[in-house]
Amino acid sequence: MAPVGLPPGFRFHPTDEELVNYYLKRKVHGQSIELDIIPEVDLYKCEPWELAEKSFLPSRDPEWYFFGPRDRKYPNGCRTNRATRAGYWKSTGKDRSINYQKRSIGMKKTLVFYQGRAPQGIRSNWVMHEYRIEESECNNTMGVQ
Amino acid sequence: MAPVGLPPGFRFHPTDEELVNYYLKRKVHGQSIELDIIPEVDLYKCEPWELAEKSFLPSRDPEWYFFGPRDRKYPNGCRTNRATRAGYWKSTGKDRSINYQKRSIGMKKTLVFYQGRAPQGIRSNWVMHEYRIEESECNNTMGVQ
Repeated sequence: MAPVGLPPGFRFHPTDEELVNYYLKRKVHGQSIELDIIPEVDLYKCEPWELAEKSFLPSRDPEWYFFGPRDRKYPNGCRTNRATRAGYWKSTGKDRSINYQKRSIGMKKTLVFYQGRAPQGIRSNWVMHEYRIEESECNNTMGVQ
Repeated sequence: MAPVGLPPGFRFHPTDEELVNYYLKRKVHGQSIELDIIPEVDLYKCEPWELAEKSFLPSRDPEWYFFGPRDRKYPNGCRTNRATRAGYWKSTGKDRSINYQKRSIGMKKTLVFYQGRAPQGIRSNWVMHEYRIEESECNNTMGVQ
């Protein structure tokens, strides 16, 4: 099913650069976004199979997009807590840089969902791509540079 | 570049089924198409590198969509002539069936462009997917079945 109002064949298939440079940057800065297509969801308060119903894109493609806050594992630490009630998301592979005009504007991390508790969790087929914006992109958007 | 008027991240990424069951079927029957996004081009009168400018989608994705007539190699034969001035399109792999509601509605053939004349042509990176609609889909659309 295409999103309501779009002709057949049109869908939300953003590039990494569009996600970071338009959607994430505008979200971080509280700027308006042309179409409210990405809901805010606390991803670690949900199990993966609960996410479909929270998506604004009732797409046949099993791909959904959310803005999510990061949850610190320890109050003063910088590690992110990626556990849900039923399992946890574990990163796989290396983070990849997202480039725009020859500079890095963000990073993309791939995570896989494991059911149960580490290190005994059972690997599932659920995959999440987490996009982070570079801090420098957050600071100088109002600047001259 | 997204097509004019679409928010960032939205693009024309049709499924095989949408291409056959909506765009190709409606074209064959002369029915209206919601958005005139697929131009009619005589593909074998063009070289692959001339196609970009004929697309209605000035997309960064190097993927373009066209309706094309089939050109017979011999007046009474059923082989398709896929030669251009600079080379020829040669099929690769097997044709695949496109299914909808458990029946085949069309076929998809993959072709690669070779520069020069067969069999001495030099294989290029240009790839074309040719969609055909099943004749049965053309006949019974007005029917009751």
